[in-house]
Amino acid sequence: MRAVQYREVGEPPRVVGVEVPEPGPGQVLLQVTAAGVCHSDLEVMSWPAESFPYTLPLTLGHEAAGRVVALGGGVSRVGVGDSVVVYGPWGCGVCRVCSTGRENYCPRAAELGIRPPGLGSPGALAEYVLVDSERHVVPIGDLDPVTTVPLTDAGLTPYHAIKRSQSRLYAGSTTVVIGVGGLGHVAIQLLRAMSATTVVALDVREESRELALRSGAHHALPSDGEAVSAIRELSGGAGASAVFDFVGAQATVDLAANVVGMDAAITLVGIGGGTLPVSFGSPPFGAVVGTTYWGARAELMELVDLARQDAVRVHVERYGLDQAPEVYERMKAGRIHGRAVIIP
Amino acid sequence: MRAVQYREVGEPPRVVGVEVPEPGPGQVLLQVTAAGVCHSDLEVMSWPAESFPYTLPLTLGHEAAGRVVALGGGVSRVGVGDSVVVYGPWGCGVCRVCSTGRENYCPRAAELGIRPPGLGSPGALAEYVLVDSERHVVPIGDLDPVTTVPLTDAGLTPYHAIKRSQSRLYAGSTTVVIGVGGLGHVAIQLLRAMSATTVVALDVREESRELALRSGAHHALPSDGEAVSAIRELSGGAGASAVFDFVGAQATVDLAANVVGMDAAITLVGIGGGTLPVSFGSPPFGAVVGTTYWGARAELMELVDLARQDAVRVHVERYGLDQAPEVYERMKAGRIHGRAVIIP
Amino acid sequence: MRAVQYREVGEPPRVVGVEVPEPGPGQVLLQVTAAGVCHSDLEVMSWPAESFPYTLPLTLGHEAAGRVVALGGGVSRVGVGDSVVVYGPWGCGVCRVCSTGRENYCPRAAELGIRPPGLGSPGALAEYVLVDSERHVVPIGDLDPVTTVPLTDAGLTPYHAIKRSQSRLYAGSTTVVIGVGGLGHVAIQLLRAMSATTVVALDVREESRELALRSGAHHALPSDGEAVSAIRELSGGAGASAVFDFVGAQATVDLAANVVGMDAAITLVGIGGGTLPVSFGSPPFGAVVGTTYWGARAELMELVDLARQDAVRVHVERYGLDQAPEVYERMKAGRIHGRAVIIP
Amino acid sequence: MRAVQYREVGEPPRVVGVEVPEPGPGQVLLQVTAAGVCHSDLEVMSWPAESFPYTLPLTLGHEAAGRVVALGGGVSRVGVGDSVVVYGPWGCGVCRVCSTGRENYCPRAAELGIRPPGLGSPGALAEYVLVDSERHVVPIGDLDPVTTVPLTDAGLTPYHAIKRSQSRLYAGSTTVVIGVGGLGHVAIQLLRAMSATTVVALDVREESRELALRSGAHHALPSDGEAVSAIRELSGGAGASAVFDFVGAQATVDLAANVVGMDAAITLVGIGGGTLPVSFGSPPFGAVVGTTYWGARAELMELVDLARQDAVRVHVERYGLDQAPEVYERMKAGRIHGRAVIIP
Repeated sequence: MRAVQYREVGEPPRVVGVEVPEPGPGQVLLQVTAAGVCHSDLEVMSWPAESFPYTLPLTLGHEAAGRVVALGGGVSRVGVGDSVVVYGPWGCGVCRVCSTGRENYCPRAAELGIRPPGLGSPGALAEYVLVDSERHVVPIGDLDPVTTVPLTDAGLTPYHAIKRSQSRLYAGSTTVVIGVGGLGHVAIQLLRAMSATTVVALDVREESRELALRSGAHHALPSDGEAVSAIRELSGGAGASAVFDFVGAQATVDLAANVVGMDAAITLVGIGGGTLPVSFGSPPFGAVVGTTYWGARAELMELVDLARQDAVRVHVERYGLDQAPEVYERMKAGRIHGRAVIIP
Repeated sequence: MRAVQYREVGEPPRVVGVEVPEPGPGQVLLQVTAAGVCHSDLEVMSWPAESFPYTLPLTLGHEAAGRVVALGGGVSRVGVGDSVVVYGPWGCGVCRVCSTGRENYCPRAAELGIRPPGLGSPGALAEYVLVDSERHVVPIGDLDPVTTVPLTDAGLTPYHAIKRSQSRLYAGSTTVVIGVGGLGHVAIQLLRAMSATTVVALDVREESRELALRSGAHHALPSDGEAVSAIRELSGGAGASAVFDFVGAQATVDLAANVVGMDAAITLVGIGGGTLPVSFGSPPFGAVVGTTYWGARAELMELVDLARQDAVRVHVERYGLDQAPEVYERMKAGRIHGRAVIIP
Repeated sequence: MRAVQYREVGEPPRVVGVEVPEPGPGQVLLQVTAAGVCHSDLEVMSWPAESFPYTLPLTLGHEAAGRVVALGGGVSRVGVGDSVVVYGPWGCGVCRVCSTGRENYCPRAAELGIRPPGLGSPGALAEYVLVDSERHVVPIGDLDPVTTVPLTDAGLTPYHAIKRSQSRLYAGSTTVVIGVGGLGHVAIQLLRAMSATTVVALDVREESRELALRSGAHHALPSDGEAVSAIRELSGGAGASAVFDFVGAQATVDLAANVVGMDAAITLVGIGGGTLPVSFGSPPFGAVVGTTYWGARAELMELVDLARQDAVRVHVERYGLDQAPEVYERMKAGRIHGRAVIIP
Repeated sequence: MRAVQYREVGEPPRVVGVEVPEPGPGQVLLQVTAAGVCHSDLEVMSWPAESFPYTLPLTLGHEAAGRVVALGGGVSRVGVGDSVVVYGPWGCGVCRVCSTGRENYCPRAAELGIRPPGLGSPGALAEYVLVDSERHVVPIGDLDPVTTVPLTDAGLTPYHAIKRSQSRLYAGSTTVVIGVGGLGHVAIQLLRAMSATTVVALDVREESRELALRSGAHHALPSDGEAVSAIRELSGGAGASAVFDFVGAQATVDLAANVVGMDAAITLVGIGGGTLPVSFGSPPFGAVVGTTYWGARAELMELVDLARQDAVRVHVERYGLDQAPEVYERMKAGRIHGRAVIIP
């Protein structure tokens, strides 16, 4: 089969021919129906050889949708022909954390060498992809795999971040979304669907602010000093009760610290290299700051149900498998609008 | 191997010879080191033939500890020789509820024919027991299987009930435990270990009230009308913030409704046949009433950790496998004190 | 001033002349701008003389909006001229429960003789109403008092019930609203604004089912046996994760018990005289059943903020103070559609 | 009456004669029975004149116990003669945050000029102290005011921090307490009383580690690099699920970041001037970092109830009012062991 592989550190990914994998006991083989291309792959391919954590060659693609074509022994909850998406942050499945479905925080995954597809294990930018357990596939019925596949990461990551802050998203609260790109515009839709908070989107780009308003934001403002006073005023002086930073650059994490209120939460989702210093008095007392990583199994199921209600939509651009190397180039150049999805 | 089977409705269980099972893909075979005998088995054996839900013969025993002796294909998180206990309320493992580890409430288990060991699937009153998935075994290291095995049901059931009410178990709150038998005396220990609530135990038997005090109850009272006013007084007039009824008879559920306060919780755990009527004004406004069933996967792990800290102890009586039928007779006659554990 | 008083048990309420009250220390005097007329007043006026709990004559009206006209000593957080609504379920203000703002469950209110306005204390069907503390008024700014006043009870009661079940209102869950009248149609709007649950409304009346759909319900069905199977199917066999019964009659509480799933919640809000029996096995394991009473202080504030976003609307009929006795007659005859609001 | 006042920036506090205050409407006058002396007063007295936030002279003392001797108009929930402690972090009492009793995070207090006693308002190092509202006094019955008064800050501050992390304090989790001084040794007692977590105390001083063990810590270790690996091992590789830093110096916040696990929480309580940088990858994914300030009203009540159960004890040294200036000197020199309490 054809697969898009990162083969040597520093080299661009290539389409190559590899063997179709066979499912061992407990495993599920999917014929890929759609695979999302994520900005974080560029991040991975920028890492230096000496600290590169995965074995090469690596088939890329950590957002996967597919049709079940073969089952390993003992698989009984999913059937051949089912249309599914893949839960990516695989954990050990048996520790206390995995027992509550938060495999994205499995403390044993690293030591056991468990890696997500496309991030260590063979990924979905291929004609077939192997899933290590039936618990990692989520049936999507007759949902379109192409528009659904971005939910597995571009959707699940903001969904998880929002769920963690849900108690702070009460009616009358002010929630700030910084950065209205691929994840940010999903976050806005999710916030509106899941809560009655007032959503304020901040972005330097005018077109992104327009996207924010189309996605349901109550307000969309440039990310500057005036945003700080506007948010104070909107919140009756209290500041935001939740801030989600999908950029994570130094300027945006500083902004996050300035707009947040007491007893609130700042979640850093974007990998922009910024650092938010926490000390006595800043951010305000009681506010908590943290990063998140991907999401939980049950959360992906909830998100698929949201898509079924048409409550969340991701704008996608469609490409063939052979175009994947070019898609990465376009992405690097900022010329992908929405989520690029490969259809093998 | 020898196994204790319920073979015909209405007949006493018998020790018979059966084949040692072999683990298929994903399954784990245990050599049983200890198996608890539970009062609910008597309940099962009292059901009439026409509505009996399980296939006979049925090897009994839903509290299981064992040593891993063989692994099916694809099992990798547990190794031969590990000492483990078994999580009993098996679910489908892939639905949203199972994805958060609450397999005890899996909505699909019944339709898929999934049954706990000893309650539909072959149980632990045997030399070997088969576990359907590695996710259902919890390592116990060097803990004694004999004193640990009752935690899998007699411990997990109250632990789960208590966890659900944890927000109501604040310092200064009053918690009432009705019935200080096998589960009740564990519940008292758990409440003391896990919270700062004031524990009031109610039991008609003087020796049970003494057991309550030894288990850590702050107060132990006869379950009568005076208990109601005593609890009102202890709680400053507010009533109990949590009530756990481990008897579940009509007299005790009525008592529960009388001692509970507003915005509190009554959990019916005992299968005593009582019915608590909920209507406007009774129980008090905001109070919730419900039953629970067994517990969640993560909760069993937490409980094993509690045992490691020596924070919970179950009094056990030890018997051989051949004595199991006799143990059921003694149990019926009320002549078992604490938990009967079979050591094959 | 004129006031609508219930003066003798069994007699209809009358418009009479009484003294304008003067605010003592800590109290706030309002000139009433709008007062809601509630069905529960009819319930109160149906109680027999021997067990009638309040002193007569009693000025009716427990939904109050007004303009602040005088302040008692020590009042500093509200100013003359402010437009406010009144939080009705007054508590002692200092116990642990009141310290978290849930004065609706104050365990000391009854013994201290603290009564809500219109339900023991002089109510809002008058030209002026006295509020016992500045903490019981919530500023509404330029919101219309007439359309806002029903939020204080007809809005707050469902809002509180929904907030208690919020963890069960996840995307993909099924929530059932039984009875689409004054509270039910508000509940549907709130569920849509605050969560991503799928809302199924049940009502025997076709016009109410239409109101349900206009209020945002995903489905509206007759409350019959077919509803049970429809809800099972919609929820993938699991049953509803939350049921709110705004009727509370025997038929509806029975229906509630039949559509609810495991680990779910039934909240009985309507005072229809029904009783839901809870026992081992019914409702399903893990489901909790309870009643609620009114709501918490912070919840009323959140609800006012929701109204500011235009996310909740109550249909009102406007009447003058002298028409109040007639309004009660029309209500008794079922001839009020939406909420009757008196404008003195 | 005599009062200990800070009169000029840079000067030591002095005992002076001032007028006994009179309670206005809603206020309560206490004859001080005990007043705690807190390290943070030294911090206040180190601030420079140009940015000093309070009006001078300032009567010090923000931990207050007293007997009610006079009531302003409208006070009805507390009576002359009652023995009480004072809830210190006064808020506006009417905003949404105050409506849930978390006056410590009132967003309006600063703009309204509301200040805690001893931190802007006249404090408790005097013969009498005025409390602004009856909601700010908590009855203590026959508890000893001298040993109870430190709970109002030295107890409430760790209690609040712990309550916020309670969901992370499950059986089998590892909780780290850094710094076993006045607050730290209370935190250890509280953790043991309120949860089943495993408590690991870290302190550079051997005597503090001994105090930790006497207070109930499971382990007490020097705060060095070996602590990091010891905690990893104790937690099965996962790291601590909660870390409370009662020092807050750079070395301790760095240590906190090194011992914490994924999805865990670090709470910075100590005012040691350290800064914890949060960025993608450090601390671990999902971990949140924040500071807290004092505690909520209901939490102080719960804590008084804990003291009633003898579950928390603070070591105190007793002094007369005239010795207060000397106590501050001794404190500066590190010669106070436990909490200094002034008995006027």
